[in-house]
Amino acid sequence: MIAENMKPRVAGNSVIRQMFEEGKKMAQVVGPENVYDFSLGNPNVPAPRAVSDAIVDILQNEDPIRVHGYMSNAGFEETRQAIAEDLNRRYGTAYRAENVIMSAGAGSALNVALKTILDPGDEVIVFAPYFVEYKNYIGNFYAETVEVAPRPDGSFLPDMEGLRKAVTEKTKAIIVNTPNNPTGVVYPETVIRQLAEILAEESERIGHPIYLISDEPYRELVYGDAEVPHIPDYYDNTIICYSYSKSLSLPGERIGYVLVPDASDDSQEFITAATIANRIIGIVNAPSLIQLAITRCLDAKADIAFYEKNGRTLYDGLTEAGYDCLEPRGAFYLWVKSPDEDETEFVGRLKEEHILVTPGSAFAGPGYIRISYCVAYDTIVNSLPGFRRVAEKYSLETR
Amino acid sequence: MIAENMKPRVAGNSVIRQMFEEGKKMAQVVGPENVYDFSLGNPNVPAPRAVSDAIVDILQNEDPIRVHGYMSNAGFEETRQAIAEDLNRRYGTAYRAENVIMSAGAGSALNVALKTILDPGDEVIVFAPYFVEYKNYIGNFYAETVEVAPRPDGSFLPDMEGLRKAVTEKTKAIIVNTPNNPTGVVYPETVIRQLAEILAEESERIGHPIYLISDEPYRELVYGDAEVPHIPDYYDNTIICYSYSKSLSLPGERIGYVLVPDASDDSQEFITAATIANRIIGIVNAPSLIQLAITRCLDAKADIAFYEKNGRTLYDGLTEAGYDCLEPRGAFYLWVKSPDEDETEFVGRLKEEHILVTPGSAFAGPGYIRISYCVAYDTIVNSLPGFRRVAEKYSLETR
Ligand SMILES: Cc1ncc(COP(=O)(O)O)c(C=O)c1O
Ligand SMILES: Cc1ncc(COP(=O)(O)O)c(C=O)c1O
Repeated sequence: MIAENMKPRVAGNSVIRQMFEEGKKMAQVVGPENVYDFSLGNPNVPAPRAVSDAIVDILQNEDPIRVHGYMSNAGFEETRQAIAEDLNRRYGTAYRAENVIMSAGAGSALNVALKTILDPGDEVIVFAPYFVEYKNYIGNFYAETVEVAPRPDGSFLPDMEGLRKAVTEKTKAIIVNTPNNPTGVVYPETVIRQLAEILAEESERIGHPIYLISDEPYRELVYGDAEVPHIPDYYDNTIICYSYSKSLSLPGERIGYVLVPDASDDSQEFITAATIANRIIGIVNAPSLIQLAITRCLDAKADIAFYEKNGRTLYDGLTEAGYDCLEPRGAFYLWVKSPDEDETEFVGRLKEEHILVTPGSAFAGPGYIRISYCVAYDTIVNSLPGFRRVAEKYSLETR
Repeated sequence: MIAENMKPRVAGNSVIRQMFEEGKKMAQVVGPENVYDFSLGNPNVPAPRAVSDAIVDILQNEDPIRVHGYMSNAGFEETRQAIAEDLNRRYGTAYRAENVIMSAGAGSALNVALKTILDPGDEVIVFAPYFVEYKNYIGNFYAETVEVAPRPDGSFLPDMEGLRKAVTEKTKAIIVNTPNNPTGVVYPETVIRQLAEILAEESERIGHPIYLISDEPYRELVYGDAEVPHIPDYYDNTIICYSYSKSLSLPGERIGYVLVPDASDDSQEFITAATIANRIIGIVNAPSLIQLAITRCLDAKADIAFYEKNGRTLYDGLTEAGYDCLEPRGAFYLWVKSPDEDETEFVGRLKEEHILVTPGSAFAGPGYIRISYCVAYDTIVNSLPGFRRVAEKYSLETR
């Protein structure tokens, strides 16, 4: 009796979640301190203290009917205004509250943006490897995901020629994710410029705009000298999907937004439709108390230095052990070339060392693995001997 | 550039919301105390104190990483377990945590249940008048809403013959909502029995089960001797969509659940698919802090006596003034026959008295209006002279 549409999804239930369950079982057998679980993207830095202080203060001093009530489907005016002003301060933009639609995290923001523009049969382009859920989100509207293969140079920057070839008259949007899950890559400004140029040309060619949907849950999580350009400055038809899941360590609370710049095509109609989409996908509005809480915490940030140290330690450790890793620039993922052509073999060998990682094919990136380093520092340090043992086994084989 | 699918929705933007905006403007002109806004279903009884106490306690004493973190897409185990046990105590059932999938309110629960079973072209039956959003929710999956017209007896109980005629081989589900929005009717046990009988027979006839999706945000809001039967006791293929929006006055927080009884067809597969649906519609999981908070407040209730008094006062006042009203048994809506064949005329006349109500046609129930009485008691008392003046005008005309 399950929908045909859901059957393949039930069958192919998320690899990441399966890992999670396996990890729990393994922990029961060998003890949780001896399992190195790098499979999930669940932040392990606590939310800044300012968030709980704000919540308590709101509960003690504000009208509960307003605090817990329905509001405009786009969110509290004061929250949207504060976010617009914060963006304006940081990026020199001129956003107003109207440009911001509060959503239940980036997952929800992406669904709202896609529902606003997609009809069955439409196409959305993504650069492989990519966050697996995009395909499901796009599929929610019976539209097609068109994958652009990675550049052969191993940089995991977008392949511009591949992008050109992927555009058809059915192309409605492209999803861009920088800092990137699963690669940890941050696209430099030159890449954004190139992307903008090609999208403008291709929009012209096919006779309608291609929206650039910028999925930015990792926007604040960048290391060293990496910088994340504000994409609407480069391409008018940019729609930003933001989340506080990682920047404020609030993933369970479901809070983020869709940003629709005035310069984008049909921006007014887009805003109206997206607000309705927020309502009719059933979320109605982003959770209310947490909207009010983040309004007061826009300057706060989770402890990013923690992730940076983790990423660095892991990168150094694995590189020394002989693995070929992409240097982590943002997010909290390390993308590692599998010494085995079939990376699931490699994943299996790591599992023997009680190290749980995600095979790249779960992100349409076979031949690689993703190591999620939002874990305790000790987990990283203690996992390194296991990684080294596996490296040695491969060296023996390949020698 | 907006999706074809969204265009009619943008054009026909919710009547209820338009009212809301008009009301705001009117309040600016004549003063908010002189506007009697009965258009929205936003609870105006504060959430029980237990909820904010629970939130503060959780923030002060529990691990923030867990409190604000991702959890299983179905929700916290402890929350689902507590809800199952609470239901078992109240209904003598034997639910387990696995039967409960936490959702972002009933709106989201309905979307999850519908996504689990609907493919494009499938049909879902509803009894008119009905909550307008059902049509949008069903439309999210490119399925069709099949309306059963009200019984001619004015009882606004479901028309069983109409139901039989509405079933086709494409029927996947029926949505039932008791206590009802917009009529305030509560279906008695005999009606549930009849419904169950017909659905069982029709399922047999068409060769596959028809799910009864029971939308229960108003389950606890019943007055006098009205009782809401636990529908799974009567019909195995019942899926309950519950919400704490009204029972705990937490509509903005987005918290509720889908209940899938073991006795329903393919219950295991349904639970798996619904959990995935929760994730891929972008909600990922019901908001975390509020899940933990309600876990501790399952015995609490918003002040229902307040709504009962409102409903009674309004019903008595309008009946005395000569209006034909359905006696309010549950929810917080009064369903009133329009003295004008075109109820929008009637709505217009009320508006001249600064009384804002919703025309029945917004619920596929023309010839009636819905008065939402989750307002201050004074609003009701002070609106009665206006209602009387309009009644007099109609009497003059019809005399
Ligand atoms: C690239 C990317 N996009 C979106 C999301 C969804 O995040 P949320 O819905 O919690 O904001 C995630 C979560 O891991 C992600 O990695
Ligand atoms: C009949 C009915 N179903 C569902 C809902 C949605 O409620 P929730 O806030 O739980 O999504 C409402 C809200 O007014 C309603 O009246």
